Amino acid sequence: MAARTIYFGRFISAPKPDELLIQTGAVLVSSRDGRGVIEKVDWTVNGPNDALSKFGIEAPVVTAHDNGFFFPGFIDTHIHASQYPNAGIFGKSTLLDWLTTYTFPLESSFGNVKSPMYKNASETPNPLARAKAAYSRVVSRTLAHGTTTASYYATIHVEATNLLADIAFDKGQRAYIGRVCMDRPEMCPDYYRDESTEESITNTKASIEYCKSLDPSGELLAHIVTPRFAPSCLPETLTQLATLAKEEDLRIQTHISENLNEVKLVKELFPDRESYTDVYNHHGLLTPRTILAHAVHISREEMQVIKQRKAKVSHCPASNSALGSGFCPVRVMLDEGIDVGLGTDVSGGYSTSILDAVRNACMVSRHVGFLNGGDSRFNLGITEALWLGTVGGAKVVGLEGRLGGFEQGMLWDVQEVVLGEVKKDGEGDDTDVDIFGWEDWENRVAKWVWNGDDRNVRRVWVGGRMVHERK
Amino acid sequence: MAARTIYFGRFISAPKPDELLIQTGAVLVSSRDGRGVIEKVDWTVNGPNDALSKFGIEAPVVTAHDNGFFFPGFIDTHIHASQYPNAGIFGKSTLLDWLTTYTFPLESSFGNVKSPMYKNASETPNPLARAKAAYSRVVSRTLAHGTTTASYYATIHVEATNLLADIAFDKGQRAYIGRVCMDRPEMCPDYYRDESTEESITNTKASIEYCKSLDPSGELLAHIVTPRFAPSCLPETLTQLATLAKEEDLRIQTHISENLNEVKLVKELFPDRESYTDVYNHHGLLTPRTILAHAVHISREEMQVIKQRKAKVSHCPASNSALGSGFCPVRVMLDEGIDVGLGTDVSGGYSTSILDAVRNACMVSRHVGFLNGGDSRFNLGITEALWLGTVGGAKVVGLEGRLGGFEQGMLWDVQEVVLGEVKKDGEGDDTDVDIFGWEDWENRVAKWVWNGDDRNVRRVWVGGRMVHERK
Repeated sequence: MAARTIYFGRFISAPKPDELLIQTGAVLVSSRDGRGVIEKVDWTVNGPNDALSKFGIEAPVVTAHDNGFFFPGFIDTHIHASQYPNAGIFGKSTLLDWLTTYTFPLESSFGNVKSPMYKNASETPNPLARAKAAYSRVVSRTLAHGTTTASYYATIHVEATNLLADIAFDKGQRAYIGRVCMDRPEMCPDYYRDESTEESITNTKASIEYCKSLDPSGELLAHIVTPRFAPSCLPETLTQLATLAKEEDLRIQTHISENLNEVKLVKELFPDRESYTDVYNHHGLLTPRTILAHAVHISREEMQVIKQRKAKVSHCPASNSALGSGFCPVRVMLDEGIDVGLGTDVSGGYSTSILDAVRNACMVSRHVGFLNGGDSRFNLGITEALWLGTVGGAKVVGLEGRLGGFEQGMLWDVQEVVLGEVKKDGEGDDTDVDIFGWEDWENRVAKWVWNGDDRNVRRVWVGGRMVHERK
Repeated sequence: MAARTIYFGRFISAPKPDELLIQTGAVLVSSRDGRGVIEKVDWTVNGPNDALSKFGIEAPVVTAHDNGFFFPGFIDTHIHASQYPNAGIFGKSTLLDWLTTYTFPLESSFGNVKSPMYKNASETPNPLARAKAAYSRVVSRTLAHGTTTASYYATIHVEATNLLADIAFDKGQRAYIGRVCMDRPEMCPDYYRDESTEESITNTKASIEYCKSLDPSGELLAHIVTPRFAPSCLPETLTQLATLAKEEDLRIQTHISENLNEVKLVKELFPDRESYTDVYNHHGLLTPRTILAHAVHISREEMQVIKQRKAKVSHCPASNSALGSGFCPVRVMLDEGIDVGLGTDVSGGYSTSILDAVRNACMVSRHVGFLNGGDSRFNLGITEALWLGTVGGAKVVGLEGRLGGFEQGMLWDVQEVVLGEVKKDGEGDDTDVDIFGWEDWENRVAKWVWNGDDRNVRRVWVGGRMVHERK
């Protein structure tokens, strides 16, 4: 990438839940240590030449499409990379039978030739080839949807997990790579579990070292400590993973209170703990760097604990609706002061698109409002949902102030969004977003949110490097 | 179109709520009076030449893509063509303020130069140009999404409504064209209403005559009598429209019980009627050819009346979620024996895609199940939702047995769906549906349902005529 690049055009972002900021001008991005960071912004610039003159430098100028804008890259705070081949495949299942019917068979196939997935396969089992196809595709796919940062779950297999790290690093996505820990014998199938706490820890350490070898700074790529969820881990494993995360100063990710039967199960498995939240708190897993996925069924008391520990929540609305998990009380959590971001939760969620999560977050919030007597206070508007998918996500991954906007000092993790134009005779471009010309930019953004897809993502940059361009 | 055409390849349909029928073979379509009808089917055919030989004729053979299939065209039983330019624009509104804030201003702009939409417009108001752009685009767009039949609401303006008829007829979509009736002074804005019952009837008759002049048979194009909804019509108008529909043997469409405040309003406006359903029943509007959109908040007693009258319901899940209208009890209605189809309800619904309605129908049904103590009996699986979007829709528009499948005597209203292929290195095609190769066809269909879009619709036929081809 060039040492300095100027970006000129329309810049749209959601710096606050109720502020859709629409600016035109130019941004100067400088590469420091290979990272593209915004050095200067100038909202008085009115053209490429004006940009060169006002910044007083010679540099390439990248111009946003007239019918488009630069928007902060999306942050997917919860996605199972290994489950991508199952996106859309879940039948009528809910969480616990979904895991055993669809998920464990697929995940195990990335490292175990005896995986049930290979049972009727015509080909010779080749776990790494399978992992490579899935991981290459999911990273390309999320980038194509404008996801510049993703917090991934892989599988229990070190080799395949390292392959995900390779692929994400190579393609340039900001990525946290979770080698999944699950070793509680009665809760995990024989064909897919760590044999012991020791194996969980040893293999996690191997993945940590591998991620460090790729990116010693941990800024673009880092391991994230990943106990699958409370029921699947031995208590001792939970404790040792917390210690490991602390020693290595790493993020932690896990699931919490997604489904009522799961909550009941946790109560049975951990009879001494007050709540699901208390299980994690007790084992030292609630930290300011912890991402808790779902939190659909948590009490106000649990919210207080999460807030005190400064742990974060990943809201996964598409998944919660598709698996019939319930209605996540996002407004209540935000009011309580908990940091919330969005997650696709592939493949509990069917889509790799955070824009789809934005839509579903809005829709689910309407349901919550309806269930509360039509109280519109629960509604998330599109600005607030976009804020969750960018600034909220930045808070969740610990990069608040570095991601999610166009201010000096922020990383250039950005997508260029281009909408379709409709001619007078009604012919339109190849996109599902039709702009007739009379809409103001706030309404154009609304149209993008509701009907946009990867066709509207023309270019994507991470840390100043262009990592996707739509042909 | 050729007098006879053979279609060869994979044919998938949902002839019953619980049956996803996957067949390979060939179908012979003959043109009778310009309509393409299935003359013969043969599920033993194993190739184009085999088809020619088995049918014993010379005819062009159209082959489905290897990674694709023929699927019955979708039937959109409720879509406001005039609202398409507002798709995605609804803010945090619910039904009644949505109408006054977004909908009436837009609709009025198709015939009234004093429409609020022109207030700040730079251009000279040109209602018909605006109508043409919107109607051309929405018909192209729905065809591109595989919608072969659509029941449209236009506006109150005869000229613009006739333009929609022209455009739909020209593009070859099977379409019902509704000239909207609304004349109750206190419920309609001055800038957008019929002046009297007489004007409602006269203008409806003008639209009826125009549709007949285009298609005397009424098979491809017909007027549909369209009282907007009970609150917007004078009681006398409701009665006269019912009479007119009976005299002309036409379909009727309107809205029912979408939103709780609307239900309350109807109670106030029609104090002598027992229920919202009773309003329509009393005025003679419940017939076997009546399409009632929404029916989110109706009692078992109302369902009984609807069933007795053999009136139909259009379920519009995306709209109900987006506008926070509530949870439509689809399972209960189906159990009661009511015919239900799917509608996009653009622009209460944000999307022109019935596939999106299929997805949302599944998700909303999960919510209903969750709210009923996790009772999975309420869940709609994808087969059932696809059945609603095809066979269900055929029942709703009165073409049961003619649309929705691949049986002898059925119309060739069909879409060819093509999915994406993922290579071993993880590169994929330009679609959001990634097929890795190990999925069976049932799972491929699931993937299509959850991540498919217009990119997967390669060709579309209505009555044997190809009306869309993706370039």
